[in-house]
Amino acid sequence: MKHLNAITISIGDELLSGKTVDSNNAFISKQLDLIGIPVIKKIIIGDTAQDIKDSLDWAFTQADVITLTGGLGPTHDDITKSVLCDYFHVGLKLYPDLLENLKDRFARRGFKFSEANTSQAEYPDNAALLDNPFGTAQGMHIKHNGNHLFVMAGVPREMEAVTTEQIIPILSKLTQTSISKIDIHSIGVPESTLYEFSKPVLDKYSDLKIAYLPKQGMVTIRVSYPSKSPHEDQKFKDEIFGRIRNLKPKNIYGRDEEVLPVLIGKLLKKNRATVATAESCTGGLVASLITDISGSSEYFQTGFVTYANETKMSMLGVQEQTLIDHGAVSEETVSEMLSGTLSKSGADYALAISGIAGPTGGTEEKPVGTVFIGVAHSEHQNIKRFQFGTNRILNKEMSAFSALNLLRLLIEETNQ
Amino acid sequence: MKHLNAITISIGDELLSGKTVDSNNAFISKQLDLIGIPVIKKIIIGDTAQDIKDSLDWAFTQADVITLTGGLGPTHDDITKSVLCDYFHVGLKLYPDLLENLKDRFARRGFKFSEANTSQAEYPDNAALLDNPFGTAQGMHIKHNGNHLFVMAGVPREMEAVTTEQIIPILSKLTQTSISKIDIHSIGVPESTLYEFSKPVLDKYSDLKIAYLPKQGMVTIRVSYPSKSPHEDQKFKDEIFGRIRNLKPKNIYGRDEEVLPVLIGKLLKKNRATVATAESCTGGLVASLITDISGSSEYFQTGFVTYANETKMSMLGVQEQTLIDHGAVSEETVSEMLSGTLSKSGADYALAISGIAGPTGGTEEKPVGTVFIGVAHSEHQNIKRFQFGTNRILNKEMSAFSALNLLRLLIEETNQ
Repeated sequence: MKHLNAITISIGDELLSGKTVDSNNAFISKQLDLIGIPVIKKIIIGDTAQDIKDSLDWAFTQADVITLTGGLGPTHDDITKSVLCDYFHVGLKLYPDLLENLKDRFARRGFKFSEANTSQAEYPDNAALLDNPFGTAQGMHIKHNGNHLFVMAGVPREMEAVTTEQIIPILSKLTQTSISKIDIHSIGVPESTLYEFSKPVLDKYSDLKIAYLPKQGMVTIRVSYPSKSPHEDQKFKDEIFGRIRNLKPKNIYGRDEEVLPVLIGKLLKKNRATVATAESCTGGLVASLITDISGSSEYFQTGFVTYANETKMSMLGVQEQTLIDHGAVSEETVSEMLSGTLSKSGADYALAISGIAGPTGGTEEKPVGTVFIGVAHSEHQNIKRFQFGTNRILNKEMSAFSALNLLRLLIEETNQ
Repeated sequence: MKHLNAITISIGDELLSGKTVDSNNAFISKQLDLIGIPVIKKIIIGDTAQDIKDSLDWAFTQADVITLTGGLGPTHDDITKSVLCDYFHVGLKLYPDLLENLKDRFARRGFKFSEANTSQAEYPDNAALLDNPFGTAQGMHIKHNGNHLFVMAGVPREMEAVTTEQIIPILSKLTQTSISKIDIHSIGVPESTLYEFSKPVLDKYSDLKIAYLPKQGMVTIRVSYPSKSPHEDQKFKDEIFGRIRNLKPKNIYGRDEEVLPVLIGKLLKKNRATVATAESCTGGLVASLITDISGSSEYFQTGFVTYANETKMSMLGVQEQTLIDHGAVSEETVSEMLSGTLSKSGADYALAISGIAGPTGGTEEKPVGTVFIGVAHSEHQNIKRFQFGTNRILNKEMSAFSALNLLRLLIEETNQ
């Protein structure tokens, strides 16, 4: 057991040219930081053998743990494996089961398997392989003079899976400090406000590391702390989540993996209830978020994307006069969308959204970013007006997540 | 005039811990790349004197141009200027006009000016100052043994202004080449296959730099080349895109900003046509992708999310017997979804998807990742069976983009 430090190396011309922002390194740093392994330097280099070797030399003299990301794939710009063989004076080893998987994969998709692809089943023979659930390029763990080199593909989803499922468990065993964390999710509160009202609670504890992570218009508070026993960690998490949540129960909705679509699923399943959606400006995003969760067919059967006024009338029974009198973006229209959704779908809960996603289409009375969001359960409706910004994609996301939060509150309220 | 290269150095503990993603470096790289100065390495280091000096030593031996970002400000972790004085053996020079500005600034905001802030008007005396319009920390240009060091604050807006308004004009005078790029987008071809069939075409040109960038199950080929005149660049882009596209016109669908939802929008607008969607396993993702594009209400009015069999029947008129005989995930069901979508929506084109997103729900005959995707235009239908993998989110994305590509082909075919 000792204190370890780390250097991250990223390979890729697209990172050097600035076309791609290197978010991989930030992800790896955060994960290492959580188990008490600080990253002391990061370097980004091109797809050239000499640069890779030089940076390995450079890194091995300074750090205990080195991560190397990118350059694993079948095309000519992917040279990492041959450089590693050269660097460590080892050969490539063929993994027959990986080759079979690869051939199956090509066959299933109806592609010819060419010999060039065999290299995807070959790895330096001093490497232990780390399972990559999302791609053909396996991760590698190479021990060298007491140091640890981890090599991964640069595709974010693959890098994230290999890091969290393979590398962190290996390193956790080697490091002294073990850090636990809890993510506390909020919606509808600016980062600075969240900071101000949570500070008095968090200041009461020593040894906490706090980060505010904004994403898709929401903010997650990440609290890290030296872990003790599983039991004490759990107790601490429950306590701190309870205290923060009680400050703003409408806005602090969940913790850790309980993001809104997951939480909605839990609540609906628990109450054996279903939901149907009617979306105008979000254009299907809410339905897509709900169905990102495995098992969502249990509680989600029907979604209407009623982008046009005609569709709001024909699919949901919104009255033409309502649209004429109040416009499509109005409380009245959303109210009729809710009633129509409940009656046409037979679901227990309905959710309806109509707004101006932008960047054009605003008026003085209803500027871009004006969105009416409603949720309903039998006779009861709750409709709110929101004012978001001018970015179309962000407006869609904020509307979708705000709708899910209103639905969360309604389900909790009706099942107390 | 000569060929220059560059190294970027970023200073900041928050970058190392992963709390902040280093987007500054990507910005600087892009700007340098455009005037033909490739960034060959990037390094991110902590707020320590030794690390700053070591990386300057390291960078000066490898590159002509070095940018150093961060560590300029009044707080304790901002040490860059004193390190520079030490490194170059020079003193600090006070700029009285900057000091006056600083005092004015404090007064205007009602703050007391303390002596600690005087340092913000002092700079190493071998530096030429570069005006920073958005902050008090001026940029610096230091010539050293024929190389150029540029030092900037790390605040993105300030860094961007100093880079584009000061550094790029200085360097443009020193450099010869400028680089152009084209992105060529493909779908449904593995990276290795794309590489193999495009290689003979790309090998005919000298001076090209090629990268294969995978994302959401699709691959983009990025071709960079020394730019000549705008007219010749355009001619070259048209030529190379035409040649690559002709190799696999079904799979190579667009270039640069023409990703699939954008391209679908262009094609539908051009033909004054509309599309409606019926989604089962993608759960609204296709509709959401289509409506990510501003102006999509012109060609998209209606989307059905028919997750349950009941909804496929009630909303789209799918026959119960079809579902019993062939199952929801079948060509027959998708065919009836298409007919129902066209008749219920009145749209010119319909798109329908039914599949098993996973990770559970597969059978031997129809394993997880089996998806039937269909597109239709009046009497004509085209339905294909796809076999994707086991990851739910990736299956949704691949299904959605494959559906948009089939729609693209059908629109092109019916409007020849």
